[in-house]
Amino acid sequence: MKISMYQASAPRFGNMLRNLSALLDKAQAHCEAKKIDPLALTQFRLYPDMFTLARQVQIACDTAKGAVARLAGVEIPKHEDTEQSFPELKTRIAKTLEFVESVPAAKIDGSEEREVALKLRGNDVKFSGLQYLLGFAYPNFYFHVTTAYAILRHNGVEIGKRDFIGNP
Amino acid sequence: MKISMYQASAPRFGNMLRNLSALLDKAQAHCEAKKIDPLALTQFRLYPDMFTLARQVQIACDTAKGAVARLAGVEIPKHEDTEQSFPELKTRIAKTLEFVESVPAAKIDGSEEREVALKLRGNDVKFSGLQYLLGFAYPNFYFHVTTAYAILRHNGVEIGKRDFIGNP
Repeated sequence: MKISMYQASAPRFGNMLRNLSALLDKAQAHCEAKKIDPLALTQFRLYPDMFTLARQVQIACDTAKGAVARLAGVEIPKHEDTEQSFPELKTRIAKTLEFVESVPAAKIDGSEEREVALKLRGNDVKFSGLQYLLGFAYPNFYFHVTTAYAILRHNGVEIGKRDFIGNP
Repeated sequence: MKISMYQASAPRFGNMLRNLSALLDKAQAHCEAKKIDPLALTQFRLYPDMFTLARQVQIACDTAKGAVARLAGVEIPKHEDTEQSFPELKTRIAKTLEFVESVPAAKIDGSEEREVALKLRGNDVKFSGLQYLLGFAYPNFYFHVTTAYAILRHNGVEIGKRDFIGNP
């Protein structure tokens, strides 16, 4: 049967976005229980020139919607990067999820060889759809979701890898 | 054409394991340049009950070799978790890479529906090969590679996302 491009993309991003949203729920509950300013978490960075938690969530969302849109050959929805609070970040994830799940499988299936052109640090880069998904979109996406997790964990939010993995 | 299970597994794990090894090279060079005890990094945790860098690397390796072996239906090579230094961790990665790249594509291809049985926190869990690879092995693998990266970055090692992504 082999894996279809759809199976390997939209539902996978969707699953992890849901897990990320649930992680933010736990972070918000943690702030409420411990009387912590939520901005202390959403603006937290693991190093001064790393991105904040809020930015990690935004980029994870961008990677997911960018991948699904590029593989499907549809326009990437624009979302302004204005979120600061947990509810705002959850809304950003929900908007992303809505788009990711709105793209029909038939538009993504067959995109293995579709050319995906990106501008990376000012350079034009071309990928096949397959190489783009597995070698670029996936590692980028997981990178930002995991870094978001690491920021929360580093700050004492009680989450575990099972929250990250969710229901495979 | 669709994606084959081989394309989506061994070469992808291999690529990221090479990137992880190169990240450790930069970490080792950082320790030498700054006269830092390498154990300060390899034993570093982002939170007291998180795993150390060394353990993150070991688990990333275990996830890769476990996934490739389970999908191929071959025995998982046993590697003792004794590594502490950067050279030892790099050897662990090299051993893992050697195994991952030794499994013929033909053994992994067609494993989409192959039953993969795991024991997770004492419970028996069954996956199809496809669900196991995309929903369990991938997120786990990227989770530990990214956390290793985050530990290094948090400690000031000069690495960037392009080191993490490598050549897609």
